[in-house]
Parts: sequence; C-alpha cells; structure tokens
Amino acid sequence: MDTGTAYDLTLGEPLLDLAQVGRGTPYGEVLRRYWHPVAKVENATTRPIPVKILGEELILFRTRKGKVGLLHPRCIHRGASLFYGGVEDEGIRCCYHGWVFDPQGHCLEQPCEPELGLHRDRVRQPWYPVEERYGLLWAYLGDPAKKPLLPRYDTFENLADGEQLITDDSGVGGGGPALLDFNWLQHWENVLDPFHVPILHARFSGNQFTPEMALIPEVTYEYTERGVRSIQMRELGDGRSLRRVTEVMFPNMRVVASPKLSSGQTNMIGWVVPQDDTSFVIFTIARDTDPDFLRKLRSTHDGKSWASLTDEEHQRMPGDYEAQKSQGPISLHGEDHLTTTDQGVAMLRRMMAKQIRAVAQGGNPPGVIYDEADLVVPIEGGNYFEGDLVGASQTAQP
Amino acid sequence: MDTGTAYDLTLGEPLLDLAQVGRGTPYGEVLRRYWHPVAKVENATTRPIPVKILGEELILFRTRKGKVGLLHPRCIHRGASLFYGGVEDEGIRCCYHGWVFDPQGHCLEQPCEPELGLHRDRVRQPWYPVEERYGLLWAYLGDPAKKPLLPRYDTFENLADGEQLITDDSGVGGGGPALLDFNWLQHWENVLDPFHVPILHARFSGNQFTPEMALIPEVTYEYTERGVRSIQMRELGDGRSLRRVTEVMFPNMRVVASPKLSSGQTNMIGWVVPQDDTSFVIFTIARDTDPDFLRKLRSTHDGKSWASLTDEEHQRMPGDYEAQKSQGPISLHGEDHLTTTDQGVAMLRRMMAKQIRAVAQGGNPPGVIYDEADLVVPIEGGNYFEGDLVGASQTAQP
Amino acid sequence: MDTGTAYDLTLGEPLLDLAQVGRGTPYGEVLRRYWHPVAKVENATTRPIPVKILGEELILFRTRKGKVGLLHPRCIHRGASLFYGGVEDEGIRCCYHGWVFDPQGHCLEQPCEPELGLHRDRVRQPWYPVEERYGLLWAYLGDPAKKPLLPRYDTFENLADGEQLITDDSGVGGGGPALLDFNWLQHWENVLDPFHVPILHARFSGNQFTPEMALIPEVTYEYTERGVRSIQMRELGDGRSLRRVTEVMFPNMRVVASPKLSSGQTNMIGWVVPQDDTSFVIFTIARDTDPDFLRKLRSTHDGKSWASLTDEEHQRMPGDYEAQKSQGPISLHGEDHLTTTDQGVAMLRRMMAKQIRAVAQGGNPPGVIYDEADLVVPIEGGNYFEGDLVGASQTAQP
Repeated sequence: MDTGTAYDLTLGEPLLDLAQVGRGTPYGEVLRRYWHPVAKVENATTRPIPVKILGEELILFRTRKGKVGLLHPRCIHRGASLFYGGVEDEGIRCCYHGWVFDPQGHCLEQPCEPELGLHRDRVRQPWYPVEERYGLLWAYLGDPAKKPLLPRYDTFENLADGEQLITDDSGVGGGGPALLDFNWLQHWENVLDPFHVPILHARFSGNQFTPEMALIPEVTYEYTERGVRSIQMRELGDGRSLRRVTEVMFPNMRVVASPKLSSGQTNMIGWVVPQDDTSFVIFTIARDTDPDFLRKLRSTHDGKSWASLTDEEHQRMPGDYEAQKSQGPISLHGEDHLTTTDQGVAMLRRMMAKQIRAVAQGGNPPGVIYDEADLVVPIEGGNYFEGDLVGASQTAQP
Repeated sequence: MDTGTAYDLTLGEPLLDLAQVGRGTPYGEVLRRYWHPVAKVENATTRPIPVKILGEELILFRTRKGKVGLLHPRCIHRGASLFYGGVEDEGIRCCYHGWVFDPQGHCLEQPCEPELGLHRDRVRQPWYPVEERYGLLWAYLGDPAKKPLLPRYDTFENLADGEQLITDDSGVGGGGPALLDFNWLQHWENVLDPFHVPILHARFSGNQFTPEMALIPEVTYEYTERGVRSIQMRELGDGRSLRRVTEVMFPNMRVVASPKLSSGQTNMIGWVVPQDDTSFVIFTIARDTDPDFLRKLRSTHDGKSWASLTDEEHQRMPGDYEAQKSQGPISLHGEDHLTTTDQGVAMLRRMMAKQIRAVAQGGNPPGVIYDEADLVVPIEGGNYFEGDLVGASQTAQP
Repeated sequence: MDTGTAYDLTLGEPLLDLAQVGRGTPYGEVLRRYWHPVAKVENATTRPIPVKILGEELILFRTRKGKVGLLHPRCIHRGASLFYGGVEDEGIRCCYHGWVFDPQGHCLEQPCEPELGLHRDRVRQPWYPVEERYGLLWAYLGDPAKKPLLPRYDTFENLADGEQLITDDSGVGGGGPALLDFNWLQHWENVLDPFHVPILHARFSGNQFTPEMALIPEVTYEYTERGVRSIQMRELGDGRSLRRVTEVMFPNMRVVASPKLSSGQTNMIGWVVPQDDTSFVIFTIARDTDPDFLRKLRSTHDGKSWASLTDEEHQRMPGDYEAQKSQGPISLHGEDHLTTTDQGVAMLRRMMAKQIRAVAQGGNPPGVIYDEADLVVPIEGGNYFEGDLVGASQTAQP
C-alpha cells in the first residue's frame, strides 16, 4: 500500500504572532517601539503622497516652509482624503471644505466657519512624528510615552572625503519588484539562513555572487545584545579563510555585507519595512565613494535584468524573490521541518517570541535607545579575510 | 510628550442603516417605497441588457410588440440567464430549454414539454412593474400592496414650443465615470452641503462654475414636506443678491439648479440611483430648448475633459468625484466632526432615520402619492436674483 | 395588485454536497475513489508544471530517467515551491536549500546537512501515484487502502491499422475557454439533458450540429451499473429512426457520441475534471484514423470560431458555455423547477446522493475495479440508425 501520500495531509498554521504587523498584534506592537524609514528625503514634497506602513495608510508631505508631515489620510471633518489636499506654508488644506492641518495635526483654519473656526483647537488630525537622517525620513508609530531616540550607526558616521551616503528602496538586489508582495518575515528570516546561498544563488541561479559564496560554509550562531548573528567560515583554498558575519537587529534590520565580498565591516544596512501583512519594502543605506554602488550590486541572470526575464527564465533561475514569495502570502511556518542548518531561523523566532512577551509586560525590546550616550550603534557585520594568500600550487594544503 | 498621534486612533463606523440599499435593509426598504429610474427609454430593445438597482440584478428588454419587461435574470427552470434570451412578440425565450416569459413573468411556453407545458401556469418568473415617463423607464421594486402612483413634476409639464426634455445617465457633471464607485449617500448628502462649493469648486478646481459661486454664502436650512432644503444668500456686489434654493427630496432626489446661475425655478432634477451599496448612477432630466443643455454643463479643467486628465492633474484639481470617492467605499460617518456648516447634512441624516422608523412601523414615507389629485409635485429649487442691478461705480454700495 | 413580483423572492441554495470537490466534502470523497486524468502525457517533462485538481495544487514533472512525479508543491523543509525545483535523474531538487525528492516523495538528499542528511528518511514530501494510459496521465488522490485499478475501456482497445488515440484538453467543443470557470456539475448534468440540444444548439445557435439534432426526441432514462443513460429516439422522416444513447458514468465521465452522428458505438469519452469548486477542465480521448478528428468537431458560429465572436455575437448565439456559466459560479440548484424533461438530471442527482452515503459508510461507489478480470469497461453510448432508408418520395410514410 502507498504510504506518505497527500491524502492525509493536514496543513500547519502560520506563526501569526510573529508575522503580523498591524496595530495591536503581538509583533506589531514590538515593531511600534522603534523608528522606521518611510521614504527617501526627496520624496516628501508639496505634492502629497500615500505611504503605507505596518498596516496603516498615511499621507506624507512637506510644507512650503519645509516641515515634513505624516498624517492620517481621512480628514477629521467629513472624511475626504488629504491625498487631494493643497500644501501651504504651514500645513495642508483639505480639498472638500478647506480645513488646514499642520504637521502635528493642529487645525489652523476652518474657512467656512465663523472666525475660521471658533473651536478648531478642539479637534486634531491624527499624525505621527517624523525625523530626517541619512537621507531617509523616519517615523515613530508607537506609544508617545515610550518614544525612543532615533539611532545613529557607526557605519554611517564620520564620512571620509569623497564618501557619501546612498539610499535605495527598489527591492531585493537579486530581483523582484520594489514592493515585495509577501510577508516580510520570509525575507527577514532569510538573513539568518546562510545555507541557501550556495544552493539558490550558486547552483540554481548560476552563481549570482562570487565563486567563494558557492562554498558550503561552517556556521555558528550567537545571540547578540540587539538580535542574532551568524559567523560563516569558508576555507578559500588559497591559504586564506573568510569569516563572514551577518546580523539581524531588532525589530527588522538586516546587516548583510556585500556578497561580492568587499573586505571589512559592511558599508550597508537594510530595513525590512512591512506595508502590511503581505507586502513590504526594503530601505537600504550604503556608504561609498561611488553613487552607483547599490545599483551595481543588482544581480543579472544570463546577462539580463530580472524584469526582462521570461516566465520560463524566472522558473529556471529563481532567486530570493521567487523562493520567498513561493513560500506563500504568509508562510505556513508550522509546516517547516527545521534541521541543524536552520538554527539561525529557530533562534530568531525564539527571540521574537521572547520580545513579544517583554513588550506585552511593559518592558523594552532590545536596542531601543533613551540615552544620548548610547546613540551610536556599533555594527559588526562584514567580510573578514584571515590567513595569508599562498601560491596556486599549494592550494590543497591550508 | 507627543499628543494627538494616530497611535490611539480607533475608527468610527459607517451609518449602515442609512447607507445600505439591499432588500430588507432599513433604508433599502424606504427606497423600495418609491419608483426609480432604471434606464433611458431608448435602451430597452429586443436585445436584453443587464440592469442593477438596489442590489438586485435584473434583465431589461422590450418585446417585439413594444412592452417593456424587467425580469429576474435566473430562469426559473434551470437557471440560465435571460441575458442570453431571445426576445419575441410576447416575451423572452430562455436559450437553454426555450421557456418563454412575458413582461409580467407569466410562462407562455415550455417547448420540450407535452403540449408546451401542461402546468406552465403554475410557475412565474419574478418580475417588476415598469412605466415610461419623461424619457426614462421607472421601476417599482417594493411591496405590491403599497405601490404608489408614478409622480409628475411641474418642472417638466406644459412644455412651450421648442422646449424638450433631455435625459442623462453619464455621471457627475464635474467629472468621474458614469458608474460612480462609492456609496450613493456620499453624493446625496453633498447636495445639502453648500459650503463645499467655494472651496472644492472654486479654490481647488479653478472656479468650475461662475465667480458668484466662489463667494461663501449665508445659509439657512429647512425641513420641507418631501425632504430638506437649503437657502443660500450671496450679496453679489452689484446691487443684487442671489437667493439659491437647493432641495433634496425623498428618497434620493437632488433638486439643484444650474451652477451657471440661470435665473428662476430649476429646469432639471436628478435621481441618485444605487446599483448596490458601493456604486450608483445619476439620472438627470432637464427641460430646455437646447438638446445639448446637459452636455454643455459638464466641467472642464484647464480646458480638458475629466477623462483626459493625468493622475497628477486629478490630484491637483479634485472635484466632487475625487472628494466623495476618497471618503471611502462607504464613508465612516461616525468619524465625522460636523460643525455649524454641516447642519444640512445633519438634518438629512435625522430625517432619514425618522423615515426608516416610519416605514418599519407601516407608515408612508414623505412624497409617496396614492391620489391622482396629488400627482404633480411642485419644485421650489432655483436661482432667484433679488434687488436691482446698479452701475459698476456703485458696486460697493448695495 | 401585482402578483409574482421579485419583491418576495428568496433564493434557494446550491446542492453543495453534490457540487463541491475538496478533500472531506461529500462528493469530493466520492471523486477521490477513482483515478482522474491530470495532463497529457507529453506535458510531463523536466520542466515542472503546476496542476490543480479537486481543490489541490500539485507539481507535475518527469525525472531525467523518465518517472512521473506529482508532488505537493510546498517543500516540506522551508516551504519554497517545487515549481522552481530542478529536475534531476531521480527526482526534483528544491531551489531554496536543495533537498531532493523522488516521485514517491522520499527525500534523497539534504545537501547542506551532515552526510547529506542523517535523518532524511524520516521526512516525506506528500505525493500521489500517477499512471500513464491512452496518452493521458492519471492520478489517484484517495485513500491508499482503497486504491482501485486504473480502468481500460473497450472503445480504446484493439486499434485497427491506421487508427490512433487522440487526446484533448481544450474545453467544450461548442465554445468557451480551455479552463471552464464555473462549477463542474453544471456541465456534467448537461450530458443527461437531451432536450437542450434542439433549443440551444439549433434554435438559438443556428444548428451547430446536424439537421437531425434539431428534432425534439422521445427520451427514456435508465440507471446503469455505472451511472445513468438516456436513450433518445428520433424519427428521421426518411424511413429510418435514430437511437442515440448517451451515458454518464461515475464519478465524472461523459459518454457522448459525436453530435455529427457518425454511426455505431461512440469513438470518444470525456472526463469532467474539477480544478476546484468553480473551475474545471475536460479531458477527451477519441479513437480515429484522422489525428484532427477532435479539432474538426469544434463548432463554428456564422463561420467564426468562438474566440473571435464579439460580445454581441456571444449574446445572440449562446452555446453550452454561455448557458452553463450563466447558471452562476455554483448554480442555485434549489431554485430549479425540474419537469418531465429534466428526469435525467433528477436521476443523476439522486444517484450522486446515494453514492455519497455509500462512500461515507465505507462502501464502494459504482465502477471502481479491484479485479483484473473486470478491467475493461464496456461502453454503450453511440448513434444507432434503425430501419431502411426509403426514397425521397416515400419520406412521409415510415
């Protein structure tokens, strides 16, 4: 008799506590304890744009005097969207009956009411605080009583002559659309999964990165003060070994050094920012002398860009996008069979569950900063080459 | 600490009792006490067309002998749609097994049954009564025991030489598609909202109408026998004042005189006809010597038609369509902050709630007519100029 | 007072017990007691393809050594889809971390694990058995303990010189897409509905078949060992009569002889294979000397193919697709008014309900074969001409 057929299959559940991002959801409340990038600085102008983050739809604009506002879109008066608002010196004017709100939601004017609104100070358009840093705009969507400082990162401080910060929000370097259409956690977990690299990115996709990345590494995982890291050792066969350190930092940061193996501390950090439970964007900041550094990192496949591949080529040369999206809109984590090589994923899930409990009990999750003395976060991720290069004839003897 | 942020936002609910239109819903049953326009007369032909109204899908056709039928689409025999039916002298024949139904749903023939159906008089295709008037076809979807007379309106009676009735079902004059894709009440309420005119239609959209309409009016509101009206006074600065009367009449009529300010009683009336809870059409009848009168009322924006505007231009020059649609598929009325200028909206909502109670208790809602003597409804809406025009030099002194 | 209007209409329910196909549904479990065609033989290659059947999504492929696999798409390791898998000699390799599964779901390799996975024999990718016959691939999705033999049909055995088997999965001959977008039962029931032929296929669609098929037949219905059949008698007016036998065989077979009236036992059989509750495909096998036999059966309408008709032409010349799809995504069977001419439909529904009870009680539904001696199923459907052709002058006298 046949065994193991799908006739008896019962499908496991997703870990919704970890995956969901909305207000009041377990991890959604952890995410709301941190600042998140919402747009590049240059995208906030006098033309309002819609922004979606953590399941919340908002309107972003910059007043004619230069202040950035991030407001609830539904005008508190009668509900027309501030997307159609007119931006003025001090705020944004609703198109329907002309109420004006400043970036903190104060109502400055009700033009059809007597004296422009005798009671206009009694209403408030819901808003969120926004700050600028490193070329991005950051918002805090959490409890005002717990608003932390907006962190700095040593990676991006003390630029040398000719260096600059570069920002990107165009998706996964290996391919896929700018707005990634599946649950963010599938991407974030992937950061602690070094073993997919030699399979997906070398064996399947024709070595997207470097020959060294095709080697199966020796990996150890460690909890850190701010998340989890993996240390991946590869013997390069030329007398050197490569120690590659990859970090995830709470609540959604990815510290992944260039897969093209530039040496030393990583020059870039990414933020995996959920729009809602089934879509996210990635904001990346890099420090380099070449303004095209991030653009040049994008993979090609048989010499073609991802967007120009046919369906058959997408199927034949899958990358992170295809693998992670095919896990489903929200992966059924309960179906996973985690093994020794999935230790990083397991550790991350445990730490997420632990922080959910900590936040629910009123504690602080890792890495929220309330003291200026702690403001600059040290970054350890990078590619570290060890040992001396030997001649090709000695390759076999480390 | 920040105050008024969206972190604590809890969203209010829509007033579904007023907004919903389906069979058995509170206002749906009020709507079903009246006749509604369903199509222009010329659209009922021997080619059946689908018609959707108050959440009900129906098939409209005209027999070869000229009678109009409005039938439930699902053939009572085996369920094929009468959309594919063949129209004959006396009725419509289902394509699947050939049953024939007349406009009252009587089954005239079952061609594959013995003697064309020995028991065909025991079945009935569900139907609704239809009447023609003023160039439109009107249907009554309510309790047959309470079917009122189909009203006449003084506006459209006793046409003078050269005058004609003109009909239109192509949407909002200011822009938008013919089928409006949001809840009908957002549009109907707008009729009692004179203050949006100087903001939305002048300040934002570049004065869609006339300079006079850009003035903020003095407004009073009154309950009438059949609904609510607003009386808007504008001092024109030339010695004259403009008294503009706008009416809503139950259950969904809009009596809005030309915003181009032709003088006297309005020459047009509109019906806001829900297809379902989130879409509606507007039927308008006008009386004029110019058959293009209604077409010429349609707004342009920087000289362009609405349909030819870019996304950026739609955002920059919003009109009724953009403002009302952006309130949501069904506006969250519970979120509104109504002020002195929203008195008309508040009065209308109260009167709707009152009529829901009246109908639920077996009473008649306003304006249903059972006596031929009451058949012609008087219309008061219009633009009334008062005072004498003075010379330009005296403009400042009314 | 008007009677019979739609105001009081309450809609009946679909017979979901008969219509639904998913795992655990009443008729879904009947369907799972049989083998079903899932693809043409030539469609299983080293490029995996998605297959959907009975509500289950699966991946079909053929190993480089020629074995066919039909696997659950979600890799049991971390959930990436095997659609992106690479097919090798013995199985398919997941793109994400490289686990390899054979067509029975055994895990052959876990390349990143020590020794390629010390415990890889403890996991199993869910799979279904597949067999090849008559140019199609057949899968069994049921309880392994009850797996029957894959039947043969006398129609397709002992091919003569020049004869061949022809397969088709491109939809209904009369028109419509290859993937039919409504409930499968609407199509299957239609097989036992001979009376729609003279109406839909002659009166409406301009005689899609032959003049003889436009005659309203005398019909008798009989239960058979494997389903229900209709015997349709038509006096041809030339001295001959036509006895046409049409069978449905459980659980979803259609035995319908050519409507172009080739004489004798039918040379083709169809399988109505649900993808899910609201879509299905039809697999047809025919035996003929002409490899284009099935293609040539497809109807034209005023000389045009179905796909090239305008919307107005589709409305004016409806066929099986339009009639059956217009019954709804799942027809509201409870609304039907079955009459004498619907006896075949009524008998089929009763027999389906009976088999649901039989299967639920552990019995075998009709036609499942466990004994090799019963393997070849006899087919009775066909067109049988009786009597002698007489001269045209004698036509009136049978």
